[in-house]
Amino acid sequence: MTDEQNLRPIGIFDSGVGGLTVLKALRERLPHENFVYLGDTARLPYGTKSASSILRYARQAARHLQQRDIKLLVIACNTASSVALEELQNVLRPLPVVGVVRPGARAAVGACPGGRHLVLATEATVNLHAYRDAIIALDAKATVHELPCELLVSLAEEGWTTGIVAEAIVREYLQPYISNAVDSGPNSIILGCTHFPILRDTIRAVAGDARSIVDSAGTTATAVEALLRSAGLLRGEQGSGRLELLATDGARRFARVGGAFLGADLSADDVCLVDL
Amino acid sequence: MTDEQNLRPIGIFDSGVGGLTVLKALRERLPHENFVYLGDTARLPYGTKSASSILRYARQAARHLQQRDIKLLVIACNTASSVALEELQNVLRPLPVVGVVRPGARAAVGACPGGRHLVLATEATVNLHAYRDAIIALDAKATVHELPCELLVSLAEEGWTTGIVAEAIVREYLQPYISNAVDSGPNSIILGCTHFPILRDTIRAVAGDARSIVDSAGTTATAVEALLRSAGLLRGEQGSGRLELLATDGARRFARVGGAFLGADLSADDVCLVDL
Repeated sequence: MTDEQNLRPIGIFDSGVGGLTVLKALRERLPHENFVYLGDTARLPYGTKSASSILRYARQAARHLQQRDIKLLVIACNTASSVALEELQNVLRPLPVVGVVRPGARAAVGACPGGRHLVLATEATVNLHAYRDAIIALDAKATVHELPCELLVSLAEEGWTTGIVAEAIVREYLQPYISNAVDSGPNSIILGCTHFPILRDTIRAVAGDARSIVDSAGTTATAVEALLRSAGLLRGEQGSGRLELLATDGARRFARVGGAFLGADLSADDVCLVDL
Repeated sequence: MTDEQNLRPIGIFDSGVGGLTVLKALRERLPHENFVYLGDTARLPYGTKSASSILRYARQAARHLQQRDIKLLVIACNTASSVALEELQNVLRPLPVVGVVRPGARAAVGACPGGRHLVLATEATVNLHAYRDAIIALDAKATVHELPCELLVSLAEEGWTTGIVAEAIVREYLQPYISNAVDSGPNSIILGCTHFPILRDTIRAVAGDARSIVDSAGTTATAVEALLRSAGLLRGEQGSGRLELLATDGARRFARVGGAFLGADLSADDVCLVDL
């Protein structure tokens, strides 16, 4: 059943390397697919920028990937998903476009129906209340608190994912919400930025074992697979997929920092610089 | 002696709000001058970007300020000074252009002649060895170690300038260099990023009282005054100077975060958005 159409790559973009945590889950679930990943490292981070700037950047990244003949677009950045998902779906139609906020909300509601959710996210994602709206749409009994945690982005980028500093920063953010009694704090902690999964162990250590810690990566991969299947765009199970990595700045830094997010060694030669 | 020429503003640019620490020193030293400050918040931080991107951004910022008829340009960003000072001096001649690296080096050499200097800076500034070269040119007996401290930028932006987290991060960076015996560690610690002066108290607490902590702000102001005087461009001592604040994104965030750096309350209405 595989034809030329199905060999086309899945396009993914993020402000930088955080979206590689989503790419990792996609490649695990869809090992035969080809992927092209674009990190807009020249303008990262998106999380502290205004909605109008983020929308402009997202349009440019999507247009670039569209020119590479992708069969589906994943916005692997919570901030860009919050700002630009609807517009990109409209503009790129009939190309399917998947964001990470709704899959993240679905994971949280699945883990804790009717629960209290604490969303750790960037300032822009929090200001737009994308998670609150997505969760309440799925589960009217849920309660949601959204917390901007900018410093966790740089912490992940610096690679200080465990240890005294990481724990002090995570504790500073979470302490007001994590009381001793589990029944008064959040039931789930949502990693509402694709940088945060690599901080999971430290967040787990601070939050304790009784709370769910959920991210978008796995449920985004499930959503992408379902969409490709229903559109007849899944590639057959022959051969392993290719991966192309693009960045708008700093191939060396992208490779050094990105390896931890992708869970694979990268060299600067693996990364191709592009201009948007 | 004051004429129309001398009423023209001094232009200052930075990647964001860090340069406001330099503007503060300039306004204290030159209270009668007019200033126009441009923060390139749409593309901050510069410190993790490549030299070619930083150079492009610096050119655009300088060109924008030049169109506002400035009489002198201050590059109030160590990263941009390291990358772009020489090129901007050539391109903008006869407009005088002042960076912050050489004034910072002068302050350090003045505080500790023949000393051991530890430079805290961004990755880009460290990669270019701008401080090492500037210090050795002034003092051949000095030794210099340059340390990239990206997380201090976000820490300052988050406003967590004192307390457990700030101290843990500063200690993580400095510990390998700050032994118990002062005679084996650095004599001076150079704040080689304009974000870092607001972390001075915490750096002092970790580094101890026996080491000098120097930044560029005061010596940059001295250099600017000397240049204006020798060019006959100083404004006379009548009236207080005006300040115009420009940013490329996020006036609200600029005002909220920038207040701490400028040492004055700001509102979003004080900040005008511009496109470069």
